[in-house]
Amino acid sequence: MTEKKNIAIMGAGLVGSLLSLYLAKRGHKIDLYERRPDMRVTTLDGGRSINLALSDRGWRTLRGIGIEEEVRKVAIPMYGRMMHSESGELTFQPYGKEGQAIYSVSRAGLNMALMNVSEPNDDITYHFSRQVQDVNLKTGEVYLRNNDTESTETIKPDLIFGADGAFSMVRGALQKTERFNYQQSYLEYGYKELTIPATPDGGWALEKNALHIWPRGNYMMIALPNTDGSFTCTLFFPYEGERSFASIKTDTDLLNFFLEVFPDAVPLMPDLAQDYFCNPTGTLVTIKCFPWSYEDKVLLIGDASHAVVPFYGQGMNAGFEDITVLDQMLETFDGDWKGLFKAFEQSRKPNADAIADLAVMNFIEMRDKVADPRFLLRKKIEGKINEQYPDKWIPLYSMVTFTDMPYSHALETGRQQDKIMKKVMKHIQTIEDYNKPEVQQLIEEEIIHKEKLKAYQQSSVSSDK
Amino acid sequence: MTEKKNIAIMGAGLVGSLLSLYLAKRGHKIDLYERRPDMRVTTLDGGRSINLALSDRGWRTLRGIGIEEEVRKVAIPMYGRMMHSESGELTFQPYGKEGQAIYSVSRAGLNMALMNVSEPNDDITYHFSRQVQDVNLKTGEVYLRNNDTESTETIKPDLIFGADGAFSMVRGALQKTERFNYQQSYLEYGYKELTIPATPDGGWALEKNALHIWPRGNYMMIALPNTDGSFTCTLFFPYEGERSFASIKTDTDLLNFFLEVFPDAVPLMPDLAQDYFCNPTGTLVTIKCFPWSYEDKVLLIGDASHAVVPFYGQGMNAGFEDITVLDQMLETFDGDWKGLFKAFEQSRKPNADAIADLAVMNFIEMRDKVADPRFLLRKKIEGKINEQYPDKWIPLYSMVTFTDMPYSHALETGRQQDKIMKKVMKHIQTIEDYNKPEVQQLIEEEIIHKEKLKAYQQSSVSSDK
Repeated sequence: MTEKKNIAIMGAGLVGSLLSLYLAKRGHKIDLYERRPDMRVTTLDGGRSINLALSDRGWRTLRGIGIEEEVRKVAIPMYGRMMHSESGELTFQPYGKEGQAIYSVSRAGLNMALMNVSEPNDDITYHFSRQVQDVNLKTGEVYLRNNDTESTETIKPDLIFGADGAFSMVRGALQKTERFNYQQSYLEYGYKELTIPATPDGGWALEKNALHIWPRGNYMMIALPNTDGSFTCTLFFPYEGERSFASIKTDTDLLNFFLEVFPDAVPLMPDLAQDYFCNPTGTLVTIKCFPWSYEDKVLLIGDASHAVVPFYGQGMNAGFEDITVLDQMLETFDGDWKGLFKAFEQSRKPNADAIADLAVMNFIEMRDKVADPRFLLRKKIEGKINEQYPDKWIPLYSMVTFTDMPYSHALETGRQQDKIMKKVMKHIQTIEDYNKPEVQQLIEEEIIHKEKLKAYQQSSVSSDK
Repeated sequence: MTEKKNIAIMGAGLVGSLLSLYLAKRGHKIDLYERRPDMRVTTLDGGRSINLALSDRGWRTLRGIGIEEEVRKVAIPMYGRMMHSESGELTFQPYGKEGQAIYSVSRAGLNMALMNVSEPNDDITYHFSRQVQDVNLKTGEVYLRNNDTESTETIKPDLIFGADGAFSMVRGALQKTERFNYQQSYLEYGYKELTIPATPDGGWALEKNALHIWPRGNYMMIALPNTDGSFTCTLFFPYEGERSFASIKTDTDLLNFFLEVFPDAVPLMPDLAQDYFCNPTGTLVTIKCFPWSYEDKVLLIGDASHAVVPFYGQGMNAGFEDITVLDQMLETFDGDWKGLFKAFEQSRKPNADAIADLAVMNFIEMRDKVADPRFLLRKKIEGKINEQYPDKWIPLYSMVTFTDMPYSHALETGRQQDKIMKKVMKHIQTIEDYNKPEVQQLIEEEIIHKEKLKAYQQSSVSSDK
C-alpha cells in the first residue's frame, strides 16, 4: 500500500487541475496553488487565448478519470481544415477518416470544468492568488506570495509538482542547479486574438465543424468555433517586415491590409480594429529542458517542462498525456518517487522534443503549404495509400492526432513517409494517377521495403538492450 | 571624428582585457570591472584551468594591436597530436603542414600579460573585486558589489560591453527582456585538472612540441606543455557509469584505473591522487543566445554570448576574433553604435553557432576516433589531397585552425568533404592506394563537381539578395 503523501501542485491550469484528480484517486492529499484569482469568480487576461483542439491523447486522459462525457458537451468537432483563398474560395481538407475530428474547446471553459469536477473532492484543495516566489530544493519548502493579503507564506509538502506553465517558477529553481539543460526559442512571429461574433440569430457565421485557415505564405489567420456561435480567430504575424505587426500602425493600415488579404473575413469582424489594437500581442516560444525532476521532491509536468508552439494543437494534449504516462508508472513505482520521476522524464523527454519540433514544422505547413495544390494532391494520395494499406501507412497528422503512438515514433515514421512521397509524387499529376501500375508498384515496394527495414531496426534495437 | 565614449567592459578576462586596447586605440575611455581580485597580486581558483591553444585567429587579433611578439615568448608550439595507446605506444599526427602549429599558453599567464600591456594606457582603468549585481537596460546603470569594501556602487557608462564569460551577469539582464533566445547545454562529462611536473633537470617529461592525447573511447586525458617544463593534464570523464567520476571513490580505485588505462602516464604524475581528489570537477557547457545586444547600450562579446566546449581549442580564439570583426566594423559604423551592434551580432552569430557545434563534434574525434587506424589513414589521405589540390581542398581542422575563413563556411565545407571522403575511403586500404587510377579519377570528379556546385550555390546566394 502506497504511503499517503501531501502533494502540492503548483499551478491550477489544465494540467494541474486534471493531475489533482489522478493523484487524489491514489489516496494522496492534494493542494493546488494558483497565481491567478479563481477564474470562476474573477475574469482576467482576456484577449490572449488561442482556442484549444482536444484530440485523442487528451480525450484518453479525460476518459481515464471518467470525465470524457462531461467535457464532450462543451466541445465542437472539427472534421478538417477549411482553407480560405484571397478570392474567398473555400477548400476543405479532412483531418482523418470519416468521423475523425479534433475538438474545439475554450481554455477557460475547460479549465473551469476541471476545477468544478475536482474541487468537491475532500482530498483536493484549491488555493488561489498564491504566487510561487522560490522553491528551496534542499528543504522542499515553497515560498508563496499571497496576492490577496500581500503576505508571504511558506509551505513544506512531501512532493511538489510544477504544473505552472511555460514560465514556470518551479523550473526556475531547477535552473539554478548544476548542469541543468535549458533552451527557450522564440519564433519571429507573434499572435493576436480577434473575434467573429455569432450571427444575429445565434448561429455560426462560417462552417461550424471545421478549423478555418487563411494561409498566406509567411503569415496566416485561423478561426475555431465556440459553443455560443462565435469564432475565436488568431492572426499569426511577423513582428517585423513589410507586412508585420510593425507595419500596421493605424485603423486604415489594418483595414486595407485585411481587405486585401482576408476579404471574406472582414464583413464578419465588426470589432476588428478594437480587437487588434487593444488585445496584447502574444509571443510564441518553445521551451526544452532536462532534467525535469529533483531527487524525490520535485517533478515538472506539462508546459513547465515542454512548452510548444500551438501549430499542431498538441500542447494541452501532450500535457494530458504526461498524466496518463505518470499514472501508469505510479502502478510500477509504488512509493519509489525518485525512481518514478527518473523513469518518467527519461520516457517522456524524446516525445516532448518530437512534438516541439513537429509543432514548429506544422506552422510552415499551415501558413504556406496548405495553399499549394500539389501539397493538397499529395495529402489526397496519402489518404489513398492509407485506405489501401490501413495498417502499414498512417499519415503523420493522424499518427499525432488520432493515435497514442509515441510522438518520437510518429516523427520518425513521418520522415520515412516523406522520403517515399517525394518519389511517388514524381509520377502523380492527378488523383487518378494513383492507379497507374508504376505508382502501385512503387508504393508496394516502398511499403514492403519499409516494413522490412522497420522489422530490422526493431530487432537491432532489442539486441542493443 | 567619432565621439569619445565612456565605455565599461564588464570582465577583465582575456577578451575584456584585449578589447580594452582596441577601444582605447579609437580614442574611448575604458573602465574594466572584474569580479575577482587582481590575479597579478592574489592567486585564486587553481586546479580549474584547461591550457589554451592559441591559433591563427587569436594571433591575428594580438598582431592587430601589436602584441603578437610579446605573447609568442610565453607560447609553446604544438605541431600535432601525440596519441598514447594503452600499451604506451606513441603515434604522431601533424595538425597541418610543415611548420603549422597551435600554441600552448596558460590562461593566467596570458591574462596577466594582457593586463600588463593595457594598464599603463592612460585611457584604460582596471577595477578589481567588482561584481555585477544587475544591469538596468533602460537607464544603462550597472549595480556593482565591491567585494573589498562590501558596499554597492552604481555606474552609468555610455556603453557596456559584457565580456564576463559563460555565466555572464550582463547576459542575465538581457535574458529578462522579451523574446530572448537562450540555450545552455551540458555534456554528461566533467573535467579534472592534473599535473605532470617538470623532470628534475627542469625539462619536459614528454615530447614538448605536441598536444598529448590518451584516447580511450568514451573518455580521454590530454596534456599541454608549460614553459616551466610541466604539463597541464585534463581528464575528460563521464559523471556517471561504469568508469566515471561516480565510480572512482578511493586512492586505490584511482590508481588501479590509471595503471590500467594510462599506464605510461602514472610514473610521471607523483601527485595524482591529491590533484584528483582536491581539484574541483569542471562542467562542460555550450551556451547559445540571441540577440547579443540591447539598443545602443549593451553588447555581449566572447564567452558571454557564445561559450563553447574546449575540444576544438577555439573558445579564446573565437572571442579574440570577435574583437577583430568588431574593430573592422567600428570603421564602417562610425558612431552608429546601435547599427554596429546589430550588424556585429548578425555577422558573428552563425559563426559562433558553427564553432559551438564543431567543438562538440571534435570531442568525439579526440576521445574515440583518433585511436582508430582507419581514421588516421583517412587523415593521411586528406593530407595527400590537400598537397595535390592545395587551393581546392583544405582539411576541416586546418580551415578552423590555420585560416580566418568564417567558421560557418568551414563547417559546411567540412560536411561536403566528409561525403566525398566516405566515397574515397571505400577504395583505400593503404596510403599507397591513393595513387590508384580509380581513386585519382574519383577525387578529381568530386573536387571539380564540388567546385561547380560551390560556384552555383554562391551565384544563387547572390541572386537571392
